[in-house]
Amino acid sequence: MQPYQTIILAVDLTEESNLIAERVRALIGSNPTDLHIVHVIEPLSFAYGGDVPMDLSSVQEQIQDQAKAHLNEFSRQLAVDASHQHLIFGRPENEIHRLAEEHDADLIIVGSHGRHGLALLLGSTANGVLHGAPCDVLAVRVGMA
Amino acid sequence: MQPYQTIILAVDLTEESNLIAERVRALIGSNPTDLHIVHVIEPLSFAYGGDVPMDLSSVQEQIQDQAKAHLNEFSRQLAVDASHQHLIFGRPENEIHRLAEEHDADLIIVGSHGRHGLALLLGSTANGVLHGAPCDVLAVRVGMA
Repeated sequence: MQPYQTIILAVDLTEESNLIAERVRALIGSNPTDLHIVHVIEPLSFAYGGDVPMDLSSVQEQIQDQAKAHLNEFSRQLAVDASHQHLIFGRPENEIHRLAEEHDADLIIVGSHGRHGLALLLGSTANGVLHGAPCDVLAVRVGMA
Repeated sequence: MQPYQTIILAVDLTEESNLIAERVRALIGSNPTDLHIVHVIEPLSFAYGGDVPMDLSSVQEQIQDQAKAHLNEFSRQLAVDASHQHLIFGRPENEIHRLAEEHDADLIIVGSHGRHGLALLLGSTANGVLHGAPCDVLAVRVGMA
């Protein structure tokens, strides 16, 4: 896939992410590509609208530890090392755009769920990623409706 | 772009379509690809909610003739012959999905207008194309916000 040198792959780390990994591998082929993998966690405080009580903090830490392990495992199958793995807290679309701008990416790849709309990442949608994206966006269809 | 054999390229035939053509050319490279180009015209009757009076019919014919000529001109730069040029009346997202299913396409490419959202084609948006797409969708960013 010649025209894309720097790719941001946003994954929700569900089983479907593995299908996306296969697609990405085929897309990139043997082309030299700077591939970044990002998983965005929405802070619980967003859902609760304020400070996170102590017990939720501990839940958050567990989520983070698990996500980090999953992200690492996922990234290994695409031979992406830790320097290109990004575990970020925030609004998925904002963080994905920010990361794309930071790395001057020319393509963002996200999963799409076909007829179910485009639920992806934690609580966000590919629509959000599309709107305001600083570059091209490839929505890879995973799962059937 | 190895994994995609059959591509539906949806264009609004504005000047920005030429930027998309360049991107598509780079994407396809020397890979054998079945490339279809589609331009969808929304019938005026949709806008007027009923039968089209005679004078609008004649406007519609002019629109169709112009669109056909532009589609042909556009397609030539991608070496796409008449059998793969599709001028269709209807709702853009519906017609693009239908065409993708009919030709068993594995990728739909549409233009995206960055921060302005994704206005594309006549009166439609890439969101509509994304939702319910039977395959992957690549939104190529054209123009600045």
